[in-house]
Amino acid sequence: MNLDEHTTTWKQLNDHLSEWVRASKVHTEDGHVASYIPELANAPADILGICIMDAEGNTVAAGDTDYHFTLQSISKVFTLILALMDNGEEMVFSKVGMEPTGDDFNSMLKLELVEPGIPFNPLINAGAIAISSLIAGNTPDEQTQRILQFFRELADNPALDINQDVFKSESDTAHRNRSLAYFLKHNGVLDREVDDVLQVYFNHCSIQVNCTDLARMALVLAHNGVDPIRNQRLIPRRFVQIAKTFMFTCGMYNASGEFAMNVGLPAKSGVSGSILTMVPGRYGIGLVSPALNRKGNSTAGVHLLGKLSQEFDWSLF
Amino acid sequence: MNLDEHTTTWKQLNDHLSEWVRASKVHTEDGHVASYIPELANAPADILGICIMDAEGNTVAAGDTDYHFTLQSISKVFTLILALMDNGEEMVFSKVGMEPTGDDFNSMLKLELVEPGIPFNPLINAGAIAISSLIAGNTPDEQTQRILQFFRELADNPALDINQDVFKSESDTAHRNRSLAYFLKHNGVLDREVDDVLQVYFNHCSIQVNCTDLARMALVLAHNGVDPIRNQRLIPRRFVQIAKTFMFTCGMYNASGEFAMNVGLPAKSGVSGSILTMVPGRYGIGLVSPALNRKGNSTAGVHLLGKLSQEFDWSLF
Amino acid sequence: MNLDEHTTTWKQLNDHLSEWVRASKVHTEDGHVASYIPELANAPADILGICIMDAEGNTVAAGDTDYHFTLQSISKVFTLILALMDNGEEMVFSKVGMEPTGDDFNSMLKLELVEPGIPFNPLINAGAIAISSLIAGNTPDEQTQRILQFFRELADNPALDINQDVFKSESDTAHRNRSLAYFLKHNGVLDREVDDVLQVYFNHCSIQVNCTDLARMALVLAHNGVDPIRNQRLIPRRFVQIAKTFMFTCGMYNASGEFAMNVGLPAKSGVSGSILTMVPGRYGIGLVSPALNRKGNSTAGVHLLGKLSQEFDWSLF
Amino acid sequence: MNLDEHTTTWKQLNDHLSEWVRASKVHTEDGHVASYIPELANAPADILGICIMDAEGNTVAAGDTDYHFTLQSISKVFTLILALMDNGEEMVFSKVGMEPTGDDFNSMLKLELVEPGIPFNPLINAGAIAISSLIAGNTPDEQTQRILQFFRELADNPALDINQDVFKSESDTAHRNRSLAYFLKHNGVLDREVDDVLQVYFNHCSIQVNCTDLARMALVLAHNGVDPIRNQRLIPRRFVQIAKTFMFTCGMYNASGEFAMNVGLPAKSGVSGSILTMVPGRYGIGLVSPALNRKGNSTAGVHLLGKLSQEFDWSLF
Repeated sequence: MNLDEHTTTWKQLNDHLSEWVRASKVHTEDGHVASYIPELANAPADILGICIMDAEGNTVAAGDTDYHFTLQSISKVFTLILALMDNGEEMVFSKVGMEPTGDDFNSMLKLELVEPGIPFNPLINAGAIAISSLIAGNTPDEQTQRILQFFRELADNPALDINQDVFKSESDTAHRNRSLAYFLKHNGVLDREVDDVLQVYFNHCSIQVNCTDLARMALVLAHNGVDPIRNQRLIPRRFVQIAKTFMFTCGMYNASGEFAMNVGLPAKSGVSGSILTMVPGRYGIGLVSPALNRKGNSTAGVHLLGKLSQEFDWSLF
Repeated sequence: MNLDEHTTTWKQLNDHLSEWVRASKVHTEDGHVASYIPELANAPADILGICIMDAEGNTVAAGDTDYHFTLQSISKVFTLILALMDNGEEMVFSKVGMEPTGDDFNSMLKLELVEPGIPFNPLINAGAIAISSLIAGNTPDEQTQRILQFFRELADNPALDINQDVFKSESDTAHRNRSLAYFLKHNGVLDREVDDVLQVYFNHCSIQVNCTDLARMALVLAHNGVDPIRNQRLIPRRFVQIAKTFMFTCGMYNASGEFAMNVGLPAKSGVSGSILTMVPGRYGIGLVSPALNRKGNSTAGVHLLGKLSQEFDWSLF
Repeated sequence: MNLDEHTTTWKQLNDHLSEWVRASKVHTEDGHVASYIPELANAPADILGICIMDAEGNTVAAGDTDYHFTLQSISKVFTLILALMDNGEEMVFSKVGMEPTGDDFNSMLKLELVEPGIPFNPLINAGAIAISSLIAGNTPDEQTQRILQFFRELADNPALDINQDVFKSESDTAHRNRSLAYFLKHNGVLDREVDDVLQVYFNHCSIQVNCTDLARMALVLAHNGVDPIRNQRLIPRRFVQIAKTFMFTCGMYNASGEFAMNVGLPAKSGVSGSILTMVPGRYGIGLVSPALNRKGNSTAGVHLLGKLSQEFDWSLF
Repeated sequence: MNLDEHTTTWKQLNDHLSEWVRASKVHTEDGHVASYIPELANAPADILGICIMDAEGNTVAAGDTDYHFTLQSISKVFTLILALMDNGEEMVFSKVGMEPTGDDFNSMLKLELVEPGIPFNPLINAGAIAISSLIAGNTPDEQTQRILQFFRELADNPALDINQDVFKSESDTAHRNRSLAYFLKHNGVLDREVDDVLQVYFNHCSIQVNCTDLARMALVLAHNGVDPIRNQRLIPRRFVQIAKTFMFTCGMYNASGEFAMNVGLPAKSGVSGSILTMVPGRYGIGLVSPALNRKGNSTAGVHLLGKLSQEFDWSLF
């Protein structure tokens, strides 16, 4: 995409984004707000907000952009990067595999079938729990602060913080995650105590953001680890490469393949209805719409990104 | 078996049991003491003790009969019975299945593949944990006391108690059991808190006995729930029937089928190297020999029971 | 059971069997005739017939006793015995396991999870196919004739033969069995060609009998391999012991545990709605009622056997 | 990549490719030639050949470029495309899923765990067999001719043909593939007869090519379906997009994630030791080196592509 393409795209976005958001919004009716933790169940089912940010920090936004939500699984992308920065590739991939697979909420099979008993990849729940244990810090608090600090820097937003109600709600009801974590402990994947690891995990899932924060964080990935606005490298390029590869192959739960075929961009979704994606080399994108499809992704969000990808021929393939 | 048969059998046992124990004892060399919890790993690898008790309380014993050990999985038979007495069949079998399968230490598959997410049967770990949650009592302490009381009555031994070192060792290292318990909680199988349920579970696994206690407890099952010595019904016959059926089909972990074919008696083994079995209508049998085969059963113990079954034609089929 | 008991039982059966059959027959309405092969789907849904035979060949029968049907999975018990007679225990159990598990029509998991890739036991489909390959004979025809000869001898009925329509129907539609057989071939379990093995397998499943034949065959098992009528040993006792053990632990598909708890007799069911069972040392029993429950067993048949077992206290435990 | 970049790259390739091939060739010692069919086992273990083709048909080649081999799994990419051209997206994805997963030679689990019983994706064996059934044609011969015609056009090589020895060898020994195919038939995925479908499948796996043919076929994918040399559209762009997405997420068996992270190009490997890959918008690449790693990919080939990707910064992310 050259500069002319950018100018044309940007104009189109300014002219049409609101209209496309309206068109996608009807698809919220096909989805359901996540109910597995009480705090998420309270989310409004019928909203949709999106923010697109270019390399100079200009944004086009539409819909319910004031809405705040928690990162949930989107945080896994950035804790993976931080774990890589703290430990290097070799160490990290001795604890989690590299192979794509969707996460299946109803099965622990995936965890077991990887030799030698490590999670398939860092984006499924079991993998992300293993990654949480690798963040530097002597205590869960130190680890959490380190994550928060890193996320604030990426979002260029020092006010980013943990939503304590969501944290508490997650922590109180996460029997399946506890089960996974104890199984990882049994398999020798976790060096720290299970409760400590889960405290870190639930904390980073509960970091609260809005669409602009997501777009800002995505922008750094779109530019291979350099924040193009402050012209500052925040992440080694190699680790962004790794993160984007996983986002492309397994960022959208069990619909990752479908999303790759139909939208064709690296992306990560969360059960808050949020999606972080990007146009590599160009834009950071954040959106939220809490009504989810059967696979755990925002119905309206997936629809809107399909529209944008098609309109601007953004698919990587 | 009529009275004459008993007289003959009893004489043979008195004459030959010590010699048969010596012959089986060499098989301890083929096994290994359980190492998954520190307290069990300290058990002597080369001992073998057995006690056989008739309906009047006479015993023939041989080998290391003074050795004390914890019940481990043998306790599952009696907590199942107590849960049935406390809740009835319908309630119990809404929480665990009835279908035979061996327990596999390396897999959680078995738990998941039963619809609707309940453990296959009450003798595999997941099933026994579910059963622990069903024992009457307002607190884990009350439940544990109830179990202890019941076991003391069955063994006719008011001194029966929990080995606190083993309890602590189990509780500290049982990541896989915690994983199973949280998965059960996630599936809605457990009404109580996971930590509380596991406290009860580890407590009943850690009740300390000797071979005579095992033989005494087995005698009650052999006589369909009536203690033939005190001539007192301790368990409704139907619940003994249920317990013996499970012992026959899945009491010996993943070697239950092999044991049923070669020994042919209802039995339950524990990782302490103990086996409780019986000659229905006749004898209670308890033995211990801590060296285990690959399937988790006492090598010398299985050999000795094979010898006895063959010698006296004890197989049910 | 002594002679007086027999006299009482026999009188009761003569007086009440027809009435109990009528009471159980209403349960045919809860089941469905097997539809997976066209020939079976034609079976009448509302019939129930039973025949009980004592050691002198006297019978009590009630219901639709003239109805003819194919053995289906019941044949697996006797091909197992014949394979043991032809090859010995060691050879047979190098090709199939000994561990109980129900057969699950919708899963091939069971086949795979046994090390080293052999079927769990000889009564699940994969195991029975492996067993078919072990029957002596140079060709599928020779093997089939050998099986037929053995079954005729057991049933004391030289007219026993293969229902060619059922054989053809099975053979034409058995994609799942072919899939299993090729997987066994891939795993090195089958020495013969897949098509040849399946020809033998479908042939023995298609042998046509009536309730009297079943009762007669069961009588030989009830008497540990000796035909008590002709006073002739037809099967070594050890192989009957093995067969009865498998019947008790996994003869009723995924409801084997439930049947063992509630009826408590060694039994084998077939999708034709037939059940072969016995009172060890006493009676052979054959019944048929084609309407099946969800687990593949005759609804009315299971009900009737529960009634009889309770009435006469026939449960082994 | 602009024209200057192309000139520089091309010069570098001309200067260094032979040297890089020599450096990678030592890695053939770490692998083993596929032995599962006799004809493949005869392949030379120590060769490595590569051909890179630009949009004008110029090539840089090095190593054992005269070696001929069969496409094996590489053919799956092009039969998928042909099935899409013959049936459209909706039909094809009613028979196979879209979700990434590696193929696991030792497990049939993957096939079963997708609802409703269809293969995970078109590149695993089960998926590719389903795809073979969808190629237009009344008979296996017509279907095979249609595939051959399509492949000849893509390779611009009318001499392309089936290696009959390999076809026969595959067909004679493919018990696992037959097992998969019958399971697909059982699940209702295949409308045609199993033998017919497998005949087509083994035929397209046995099409013989050299590195230049692979590079030529890859070039068409690199240019989104247009043959840039003859300036002719051979495949609708959408179907190339689909094919490249699957190649990126699951083209390298169980090492697809690792390859995506380390090489970052859409690729497909075959057990003949061949790899087809491309630099999108630019080059087609074909290579062969029969010694395979544990995951079924050419050891030297993966090493060489890693070197090239790093040298020229070809990774998509």
